[in-house]
Amino acid sequence: MPKHAKKDFPVTKVRRFIEPGPVVLVSSQYKGERDIMTMGWHMIMESSPSLIGCFIWDQNHSFNLIRRSKECVINLPTFDMVHTIIGIGNSHGPAPDKFAQFKLTAAPASKVDAPLIAECYANFECKLVDASLIKRYCLFVFEVVKAHVATTPRYPTTVHYRGDGVFMIAGRNVSYRKQFKRVNL
Amino acid sequence: MPKHAKKDFPVTKVRRFIEPGPVVLVSSQYKGERDIMTMGWHMIMESSPSLIGCFIWDQNHSFNLIRRSKECVINLPTFDMVHTIIGIGNSHGPAPDKFAQFKLTAAPASKVDAPLIAECYANFECKLVDASLIKRYCLFVFEVVKAHVATTPRYPTTVHYRGDGVFMIAGRNVSYRKQFKRVNL
Repeated sequence: MPKHAKKDFPVTKVRRFIEPGPVVLVSSQYKGERDIMTMGWHMIMESSPSLIGCFIWDQNHSFNLIRRSKECVINLPTFDMVHTIIGIGNSHGPAPDKFAQFKLTAAPASKVDAPLIAECYANFECKLVDASLIKRYCLFVFEVVKAHVATTPRYPTTVHYRGDGVFMIAGRNVSYRKQFKRVNL
Repeated sequence: MPKHAKKDFPVTKVRRFIEPGPVVLVSSQYKGERDIMTMGWHMIMESSPSLIGCFIWDQNHSFNLIRRSKECVINLPTFDMVHTIIGIGNSHGPAPDKFAQFKLTAAPASKVDAPLIAECYANFECKLVDASLIKRYCLFVFEVVKAHVATTPRYPTTVHYRGDGVFMIAGRNVSYRKQFKRVNL
């Protein structure tokens, strides 16, 4: 799979990629061990600071890597990676290394130790800022501290999970900018 | 706008409509006053019970109606309602009544006092089950107690907000069911 050329992106605008609701791949690392998981349950909680709430099941191998390292990378895959997304979703446990298994490139992040997935359209480096809801809801509140976004295409063709094995593929993009009150953009 | 014929739907499967990340319309009612707001920041938090976490800004008129009544309806609009979605997003404050202003039909719910929006593809009646995160995060945790879903089409053409006045319109649906491990469906 091709790797995207990327640019730094303002962390306060990460909602443009998360708010539409795509399946994402979460990469993590702790004491030399690394993992990737698929994630569909997440939400923007604030723009500035850039907070994302994420449901991470305590039975997932990534759970402890993320909880202990207090960081992760949220990677945004596109439709061309759908078989990788499904394969990672089907994989559980520590071995084999998922980067090797799925022929993904681990690129160094700048503010966290967890690796970026180079093939994804965007990569959001995250620090855990609130662990108090993990026990009750498996809810991790992350702050995006660094964002890398592909320079092209303008909008990623993301996949959105409908359950029962069905994905909705992101369709066309329509601007209604002129109809919005400026404060609501 | 046409009103959909609807059937009861299992509340534990509501994630099929929320997990893809659509913009929704939230209707509420308290002591005879009612309101509708647009909402883009939400996530599934559990399947059974059917929990949805929702960010509701404390400056929104709906905030107090929902906090006081401890309930709401999450309504799923489709692309044909995009001007209504934008119009409601641009409207603030108690008056005029948004059902009248936007020519929407308030239908009675069965387990909450808040009205359903008949024109929407689906309606999820919700009870507030955790108010402890409202102050810190404007995060309301709702349990879906009753779900009404259109009998046709099979998948709704929802709209997903990209920010800056741009919506992504739900595209085609592709089943990869045979590639999924059964436990992951």
